[in-house]
Amino acid sequence: MHQARIVGVGMTNFGVHDQPLPELFSSAAFDAMDDAGVDAPAIESFYLGNAMGGQTERDTHLAPTLASHIGLAGIPCQRYEDACATSSNAFKHAVRAVEAGQHDVILVGGVERCTPTTGLDTPEMTSVFASASHRQYEQPTGLSFPGVFGLLTTRHMHEYGTTEEDLAAVAVKNHHHGTYNPRAQFGSETTVEEVLESPIVASPFHLFDCCPFSDGAAAVVVANEEAAADFSGESVAVSGVGHATDTIPLADKADFTATQSARDAANQAYEQAGVGPDDIDVVELHDCFTGAEVLAIEALGFFEDGEGGPAAANGETALDGRIPVNPSGGLKAKGHPIGATGVAQLVELTEHLRGEAGERQVEGARRGLAHNLGGDAGTTIVSILEVDA
Amino acid sequence: MHQARIVGVGMTNFGVHDQPLPELFSSAAFDAMDDAGVDAPAIESFYLGNAMGGQTERDTHLAPTLASHIGLAGIPCQRYEDACATSSNAFKHAVRAVEAGQHDVILVGGVERCTPTTGLDTPEMTSVFASASHRQYEQPTGLSFPGVFGLLTTRHMHEYGTTEEDLAAVAVKNHHHGTYNPRAQFGSETTVEEVLESPIVASPFHLFDCCPFSDGAAAVVVANEEAAADFSGESVAVSGVGHATDTIPLADKADFTATQSARDAANQAYEQAGVGPDDIDVVELHDCFTGAEVLAIEALGFFEDGEGGPAAANGETALDGRIPVNPSGGLKAKGHPIGATGVAQLVELTEHLRGEAGERQVEGARRGLAHNLGGDAGTTIVSILEVDA
Repeated sequence: MHQARIVGVGMTNFGVHDQPLPELFSSAAFDAMDDAGVDAPAIESFYLGNAMGGQTERDTHLAPTLASHIGLAGIPCQRYEDACATSSNAFKHAVRAVEAGQHDVILVGGVERCTPTTGLDTPEMTSVFASASHRQYEQPTGLSFPGVFGLLTTRHMHEYGTTEEDLAAVAVKNHHHGTYNPRAQFGSETTVEEVLESPIVASPFHLFDCCPFSDGAAAVVVANEEAAADFSGESVAVSGVGHATDTIPLADKADFTATQSARDAANQAYEQAGVGPDDIDVVELHDCFTGAEVLAIEALGFFEDGEGGPAAANGETALDGRIPVNPSGGLKAKGHPIGATGVAQLVELTEHLRGEAGERQVEGARRGLAHNLGGDAGTTIVSILEVDA
Repeated sequence: MHQARIVGVGMTNFGVHDQPLPELFSSAAFDAMDDAGVDAPAIESFYLGNAMGGQTERDTHLAPTLASHIGLAGIPCQRYEDACATSSNAFKHAVRAVEAGQHDVILVGGVERCTPTTGLDTPEMTSVFASASHRQYEQPTGLSFPGVFGLLTTRHMHEYGTTEEDLAAVAVKNHHHGTYNPRAQFGSETTVEEVLESPIVASPFHLFDCCPFSDGAAAVVVANEEAAADFSGESVAVSGVGHATDTIPLADKADFTATQSARDAANQAYEQAGVGPDDIDVVELHDCFTGAEVLAIEALGFFEDGEGGPAAANGETALDGRIPVNPSGGLKAKGHPIGATGVAQLVELTEHLRGEAGERQVEGARRGLAHNLGGDAGTTIVSILEVDA
C-alpha cells in the first residue's frame, strides 16, 4: 500500500465573499497547487466537497465545472455531499485512491457560500441547513441544527453537570485562538459574560455558542510518497483516516452524548496510524456549537466521558494547554463554509506540522488530528496527519 | 487486484411513486440484497447516488439516512452528485474500493423523485435540472437540457445530414423495447409520425424525443470474487470502468458532436476489460434525448462518426440488430429518475448476462456496456460487465 501525503495546501479567508463559486474555489486551488509545486497536468483526479450548492445558488455538477475553470478539464471529477462532513469524505476517498495506487496525485477541495451573498438571509439559510436533518421525523417539527446539538448538549449537562459557563468558555477560547488567525471570520475576543448575555438561539446555546455562516474555500494536494518527493511542497503523511456513521433520526441513537460515529471513526484512524489520543499534539475539531466541542473531545479520547465540560475553562484545550484544540479558532471563530470546513481543518494541521502557523503555532507539533462531523452527528470522519519521525 | 463483481440487483418500476425517498430506496435495496443472498451485516459500505434531493425535496445527508432506514447504520456512507451520471460515479468508486481490497461487499444505490410527487411541476423541475448547466454562462441565457442536447444534435445534423426522422426512429425503437419491460414508465409504442407531430421542446427535439421525468430507485451489491462465491446470487464480473470529463461550459468544447468524455471513458473501460466495441453484445446508454443516443453510439465506437444517425431507422440498434441498444427502453421509455439511472443500467445489463431479461432478452449476451452521461456532456462513466468465459 502506498502512503498518502498532503503536499500542498491553500485556503481563502473565511467570511463574506461576493464571488461565483468557481472564482472563490480557484483561489484556494491555485494556492494549494503553488504550495505543492504541482502543475495542472500532474493532477489526475479532482475530489470536491460542496454540500448545498444546488439549494443555495442553483449550481450543481460542480466538480467538472470547477475543474474546467482551473484548467483540469478531462480528468475524472466527483462531488461529495455528506452534510458538514462533505469535504472530509472527499479527502478520505482521495487518500484511499492514492493508497491503492489508483491515482498518484489528486486535488481535493471544498467550497461553499452560506452568507447573504447567495441571496438567502439567515432564516432561509438555517432552513437550507436543516435539509440535512431527517426529512420525515425532524424537519416537520422545526428541528434545525442549533436544536439538534442543543438536545445532545442538554443531555450532557443533565448527565454530567456541564454548565452554560463551561460552554461559554469554549467560545472564549476559540475566539481567542481566532485572534491569531488572519483567515478567521471573527478576529476578536469574547468573554463568558458576553456569551451568556447574547440571545438564546436554541437552549442551551446563546448566539455566541454558535458558529457563523461563512463563505470560503480550501484545497489540498494529495500524492503518494514517490510523487510527493518530486514536488517542492513540504509534505506531511496521512497516517490514518476513519469514517463511520450513526443512526438517523436522532431519536434512534442509543446514547445521546456518545456521538458514536466519532468514537468509531477515531478508533479506525488511531488503528491505521498505530497511535492513540495521547500521541496527538494538535486537534482541529467540529465545534459547530460549543457543546459539540465538549462531546468531541470525549469521543476522541482526550477526556474521560463527562469530564469534557470544564476542559476549556481549565485551559486544558488552549494553545498552551495539555491538548490544544482548534488553534485556528475552529468553526466558531474561523467560520464554517460547510463544504470547505473539512479540508480547511487539514490545511490548518498541515501548517502546524510544518511549523508555519505563525502566532497560533502549537510548538513542536508532530501529529495532528481532524474531526469533521455531518448532520445529526450522523457522519464523522477523523484524519490523522504527521511529520516523519 | 481483486475482481469486482455484481452479485445482486434490484430496482423499482420507474414512473410515479408517492413515497418518501427512504421507502422508495428500500424497495430496490432489499431486492438487491435478497437477489444477492446478502444479509445486512455483510455490507461494509454504502455508496449512494442522488442528484437533486436538496432542491427537489429538502432532503440532504441522504446516504446515512437511507442506510439507517435499511438497517445499515454505522458503516461508512457517501453521497455522490454528478448530475445525471451520479450513481454511475458511486458505482465506479465502489468498484475501485473492492478492486483495492478496501471493502469486500458494498451496496451501491441511486434514488430520485422528479415527478410532481415532489410538489414541483414540470417547468419547476426543468429549472432544477438546469442547475447542472453552467451557472454564469448558461443558466442566465435560459439554456436548459433539451437546449443543450438540441445544440449538440443540431451540429450533428449540420455536419452529417442526420434528420429529424432519424431521431424519431430512436424514440420508436426505445418505446418498442419498453413494451417488453414491465418496469418501464412508457409501455406503449410510438411512431415516427407521432414523434414528429408532437410539440417542439427545443429544436430539433419534439416532446417525444425527450425522456420523461420519473421517480425510481435501483441498487446493486458489489463484492470481490471471494465474497461473491459465498453468496447465492449469480454474479457477473465488472471487467472495466472508465470515467472522464469534458469542458464546461458547452461553448468551450473543441468538438460539439464528439462528446469527448464518452470517448475517453469508453477507451479506459475497453482497455481495463481488454476488449473493444466489437466484443460488446448489449448496450444501455444515456438517451436523455434521441440525439444523445446518436452521439453516444458513435462515441462508444459502435458506428463511425457521422453514421449513427440512421442506425435506429435501419434496425441496427434494435433488440435483434447488430448491436442492441437500450433493450430496457432506455431513459426515453424506461424513465429517468436521475440519481437512479446509472445503477438501473447495470441492473438491466446484469439481467441480460444472466439470461433473465424475459421478452427483451438479448440472446446469448455475454458482455454488456453501460454509458451514463452527466450535465453538458461534462461527465461520462462507461462500465463493462461480463459473464465468465
